[in-house]
Amino acid sequence: MALIVQKFGGSSVADAEKINRVAGIIKDTYDAGNSVIVVLSAQGDTTDDLIDKAHEINPAPSKREMDMLLSTGEQISIALCAMALERMNVPVVSLTGWQIGMRTDSSYSSARIKSVATERIRAELDRKRVVLVAGFQGVNKFDDVTTLGRGGSDTTAVAIAAKLHADLCQIYTDVTGVFTADPRLVPTAHQLAEITYDEMLELASLGAQVLHNRSVEMARRYGVNLEVLSSYERKPGTKVKEVVKMEETKISGIAKDSNIARIALVGLKDEPGVAFKIFRDMAKAKINVDIILQSIGRDSTKDISFTVAQSDVDAAMKTLMDNRDAIGFQNLSMDDTVCKLSIVGAGMINSPGIAAMMFEALYDAKVNIRMISTSEIKVSVLIDEADSDIAMKAVHQKFFGE
Amino acid sequence: MALIVQKFGGSSVADAEKINRVAGIIKDTYDAGNSVIVVLSAQGDTTDDLIDKAHEINPAPSKREMDMLLSTGEQISIALCAMALERMNVPVVSLTGWQIGMRTDSSYSSARIKSVATERIRAELDRKRVVLVAGFQGVNKFDDVTTLGRGGSDTTAVAIAAKLHADLCQIYTDVTGVFTADPRLVPTAHQLAEITYDEMLELASLGAQVLHNRSVEMARRYGVNLEVLSSYERKPGTKVKEVVKMEETKISGIAKDSNIARIALVGLKDEPGVAFKIFRDMAKAKINVDIILQSIGRDSTKDISFTVAQSDVDAAMKTLMDNRDAIGFQNLSMDDTVCKLSIVGAGMINSPGIAAMMFEALYDAKVNIRMISTSEIKVSVLIDEADSDIAMKAVHQKFFGE
Repeated sequence: MALIVQKFGGSSVADAEKINRVAGIIKDTYDAGNSVIVVLSAQGDTTDDLIDKAHEINPAPSKREMDMLLSTGEQISIALCAMALERMNVPVVSLTGWQIGMRTDSSYSSARIKSVATERIRAELDRKRVVLVAGFQGVNKFDDVTTLGRGGSDTTAVAIAAKLHADLCQIYTDVTGVFTADPRLVPTAHQLAEITYDEMLELASLGAQVLHNRSVEMARRYGVNLEVLSSYERKPGTKVKEVVKMEETKISGIAKDSNIARIALVGLKDEPGVAFKIFRDMAKAKINVDIILQSIGRDSTKDISFTVAQSDVDAAMKTLMDNRDAIGFQNLSMDDTVCKLSIVGAGMINSPGIAAMMFEALYDAKVNIRMISTSEIKVSVLIDEADSDIAMKAVHQKFFGE
Repeated sequence: MALIVQKFGGSSVADAEKINRVAGIIKDTYDAGNSVIVVLSAQGDTTDDLIDKAHEINPAPSKREMDMLLSTGEQISIALCAMALERMNVPVVSLTGWQIGMRTDSSYSSARIKSVATERIRAELDRKRVVLVAGFQGVNKFDDVTTLGRGGSDTTAVAIAAKLHADLCQIYTDVTGVFTADPRLVPTAHQLAEITYDEMLELASLGAQVLHNRSVEMARRYGVNLEVLSSYERKPGTKVKEVVKMEETKISGIAKDSNIARIALVGLKDEPGVAFKIFRDMAKAKINVDIILQSIGRDSTKDISFTVAQSDVDAAMKTLMDNRDAIGFQNLSMDDTVCKLSIVGAGMINSPGIAAMMFEALYDAKVNIRMISTSEIKVSVLIDEADSDIAMKAVHQKFFGE
């Protein structure tokens, strides 16, 4: 007798067979007596196919028309899934972004949600219908179609769950939940029953791509109970909430991010303002900088190194070269054979020695640490990409055993 | 400096190359200083593909969800065409049915237009933008998506032209205009410069599938000037209007309809109410009956024969057999190797002898006439399908010469 929001991604609705499987999950939830709202993404490769079609006609179409085009993908998904539920005799109605009053700002292709109307959804729930909502899309104040950008359907689901005070927001994916480490890399990794929003945020930003940060942040802000679970296996997933039962271990998971590069500036003048100039230029170029290390160099110079996403390396290098005179470095180097390994855990803050345990595991495994960064619930180290698998297993073994 | 509505069908926007050609026509119209509204259908086979996808999931989906699904096709077309115009530096905006306030009744899959809002379209025209409108679709009073059924995009174009008092509504097709007969069947057929709404209506219903009756009826009611022309060849088409310049000949065209069948009921009682019972049953089964012939049979019985579309034959035969006792016929037969040949002309009404000319031509060509039906601007005869090509050429020769 709960109000449940379920979200299924593009791979979960890629073809007729998969849509029927999703419809089966929805039917079971409905038959158990729940009110059910379902948010769907576009089928499998639909969005990519539409982008290809667009680029064949115009390599640089306006974002407004691109959103008009792409929003059809989710509309197709909800109509097809509604038909599958109709065949199972489940009362159902599909609704687009504009039909549920999903209002956004006008940043086409990466719009932010401003408000969600509830009248239509509530009226349909009162009529005992399953409500299928097109994810990823909304309308701005001009009634023009907008899309929410990456992870948009997750955000749609959480926004609706928040607005309607849903008891639970289930995000169905192709994994059964959140693991202590990537099971493909660490065979002994196990699934977590619960995890806090903060831990989930750190894990997501560290490369454990289960949930998008934007939706987790929104869930935390509005206290939406999330559950990450599989659309293929019918078993409990991982709950994401404010406070979780303390587990024996103090950390929740280990994440690896190989999509980074380290940039080093050698021979900078040891005077105030040097770091400011570098990172002001990076910010201007909209480049996110992650770990920063400053060290003393030779002959009263200093060195600064930092990491950026690999996709930002070219822009970062160009920005630095363009501003070489203002910054004043002797040497610039880049290394993209590095990898960031992180442990995350809300319990860490009250448990001294967690970082030391990680360093010990890496030392025992003969892995060299090149940079270190810590936050209240996270410890990250930069290591050579070649060491990453050994390092991950060693750290997992240290904290979780076999 | 006119307001022009242009409509392009699905084959005209089937791929990137064709969309660019259509965009070229639109650009030329805009560059000539006109305000331009363009109505587009779904690309080529898009609608059929979507129907296949639906039927794979549910052989009998609700019409509401089918409309939700199919309306995406036109949305894709307008977005892609907008991108083509953007590339040509033509200011443009695409709008869906709900965005232009295209209000319909709730007959999903065959909705009737109730009203068209003009604010958004006018505002965009005032900003000197080409307005691309998704044809075939609207929304009902619940804000649910509806589609207009066959010929829906033509109807969208005419409705907008009527509401905005457009100077001209151009319907682009794959033929250059309306011909005196099908040029594939009658090589000497020639294109008409002008034709009246009534003639167009008769020709369309007789199988000359250029414009849909529904849009022509609406155009006549609101006095919308139509032009039928080709999206492949840049030359004047055929104008459809209330009064046309009298041409030397009294008829406008000859049409053939092979998609019919003749049903004959033999040995009916010669008493009142027999015909009533038959055609009441047909009406109940939603079967359109065309030509009806009643003749005296043997032994104080009578025979009734009539024509229906071939797609309705099975339903008609079943209805008659189900009601055999109430109707009381001795014998029932069906013949689908027949064909209806018709001449149409608004001038006919004031010109006696037109029908006789047609019969003479058929007699000279040794074509046997099996049934005859006439209206104020039309004469139709039922003949054997095998005679249809000879008959068509003979009648064309009689009225239009070589």
